[in-house]
Amino acid sequence: MPAMPPRAHFADRLIAAIQKKGAPICVGLDPRLNQIPEFIKSEKIAKKGKSFEAAAEAIVEFNKGIIDAVHDLVPAVKPQFAFYEQYGFAGVRAFEETCKYAKEKGLIVIADAKCNDIGSTAEAYASAFLGEADVFGEKVAVVDADAVTVNPYLGHDGVKPFLEQCRERGKGIFVLVKTSNPSSSDLQDRVTEDKLRNYEVVAHLLESWGADEVGESGYSSVGAVVGATYPAEAKRLRTLMPHAYFLVPGYGAQGGKAADVKACFNADGLGALINSGRDIIFAWQRDGSERNFEEAARAAVLKMKDELAKVI
Amino acid sequence: MPAMPPRAHFADRLIAAIQKKGAPICVGLDPRLNQIPEFIKSEKIAKKGKSFEAAAEAIVEFNKGIIDAVHDLVPAVKPQFAFYEQYGFAGVRAFEETCKYAKEKGLIVIADAKCNDIGSTAEAYASAFLGEADVFGEKVAVVDADAVTVNPYLGHDGVKPFLEQCRERGKGIFVLVKTSNPSSSDLQDRVTEDKLRNYEVVAHLLESWGADEVGESGYSSVGAVVGATYPAEAKRLRTLMPHAYFLVPGYGAQGGKAADVKACFNADGLGALINSGRDIIFAWQRDGSERNFEEAARAAVLKMKDELAKVI
Repeated sequence: MPAMPPRAHFADRLIAAIQKKGAPICVGLDPRLNQIPEFIKSEKIAKKGKSFEAAAEAIVEFNKGIIDAVHDLVPAVKPQFAFYEQYGFAGVRAFEETCKYAKEKGLIVIADAKCNDIGSTAEAYASAFLGEADVFGEKVAVVDADAVTVNPYLGHDGVKPFLEQCRERGKGIFVLVKTSNPSSSDLQDRVTEDKLRNYEVVAHLLESWGADEVGESGYSSVGAVVGATYPAEAKRLRTLMPHAYFLVPGYGAQGGKAADVKACFNADGLGALINSGRDIIFAWQRDGSERNFEEAARAAVLKMKDELAKVI
Repeated sequence: MPAMPPRAHFADRLIAAIQKKGAPICVGLDPRLNQIPEFIKSEKIAKKGKSFEAAAEAIVEFNKGIIDAVHDLVPAVKPQFAFYEQYGFAGVRAFEETCKYAKEKGLIVIADAKCNDIGSTAEAYASAFLGEADVFGEKVAVVDADAVTVNPYLGHDGVKPFLEQCRERGKGIFVLVKTSNPSSSDLQDRVTEDKLRNYEVVAHLLESWGADEVGESGYSSVGAVVGATYPAEAKRLRTLMPHAYFLVPGYGAQGGKAADVKACFNADGLGALINSGRDIIFAWQRDGSERNFEEAARAAVLKMKDELAKVI
């Protein structure tokens, strides 16, 4: 297969998509089988039994419904790899099909796999999620997501192969800086002898890793994961990483509110993409019935868009 | 399906296996397609073209050959997930088949996936690699490895669901502490205001996370990844984590020698499992021909066993 034409810069593409949709919202596609409507599951079980294949097909059908319902409202989706991988290779196929469908619908796809390894192994992860595998000498795209999440614990070696995909294929990464969970303090909040917290150390590293990847927008293809649940830390990190786009988990079900994520945005109204998963994709359990799970998801996105518009 | 019977404690099982085989060696099953013998690849290409399926089948056949050649010599194997995932879901199927075959041959399987996430996502990873998925109300094992590698950046939240698998199913984890790569210093070597390096902070966290998981052997099911390329750090870490079994990458191709890993062992000759990948599985490229790749791997293990015996 011929090499793919070079793509536009990731952060520039992301900003164009956010501006087109008028909403800095990413929908987390984290399918929990026990929260997928029964009418979808029962049809799959009737065909394939209580199997991984049936689970995978139910997930794909559910995700397609959500994507159809929200693709004109949001710029991006973020499928979390674990929720697919737990159903084995059939689940991984569902992950691939979900990414493919979302891209066909014009969405930016952020593969949330929190990759972390070194050397040739990091290269293999970069190939898997962003690049092309070498299959007997032929280059073939695998997941071909637009961006992937990366863990910084292994330092620059764990990031380099992904930077190559940023440069060569218009891809992006979001490096974990300050995560949304309570025990993120265990290591991330430790103070170094330079009076920096570890998340601030990572912020400085991240700015340097992304320095050569800044696009016309002034933002880099090397972004940061900063939890919505830590607004004070987000404010500090916003100043430490002027070129990084923030991917912000923790909105909604994890407790983050619109006022909490305000600090993730720059004065220009850009700089942050707010992720919400459960509150959107399973909104039908709160606000509707299983037959209208798409409408409930759409309504949840519109509500979140209104909430954010008040603070940006 | 009925629940699986509780298994024996992971570290105790690992030690029994190391003592039975008389070698603290783990074989890294990191298949690089371009280093797999042509006679295996050409047969698969003839059947399935230059496809992910052919790549996956070549990997499984190669791995089975390696496992057959070394299973009576070593206690454990460590397949690295990225090398499989890069061939999409077909590659993930090859990963699952490799783990299954290694377990059938009596080997302890360490899934090297460097999991890191929180809450229900961490639970999904723990289910995927160590536990059972809930498939429409039925519990089904997926990879069912004996242990998995875990990244500590997210703190205790990212480890908890794996600890449950340790307790309930006799599983183990190896938490990244000091990795073997050059830029592991970027974050891991930063000195905190308590005059600890970050890898020492993680070592203290790890000892506390594993405190309730200590077996009859005195070792915990919560082990540590400590690179062979940093012997001075390993010596210090050995004293900081008396209950942790060390999984030691970086031997051989990455530059670690037998003298370097000596510090990873305790005075009782236990406490470390030394991983070698490329130097063993692709030994045929150095010491033989492709038709005898199994014998070359076996000879490489025996050579490594001799090297280690001189220092332990």
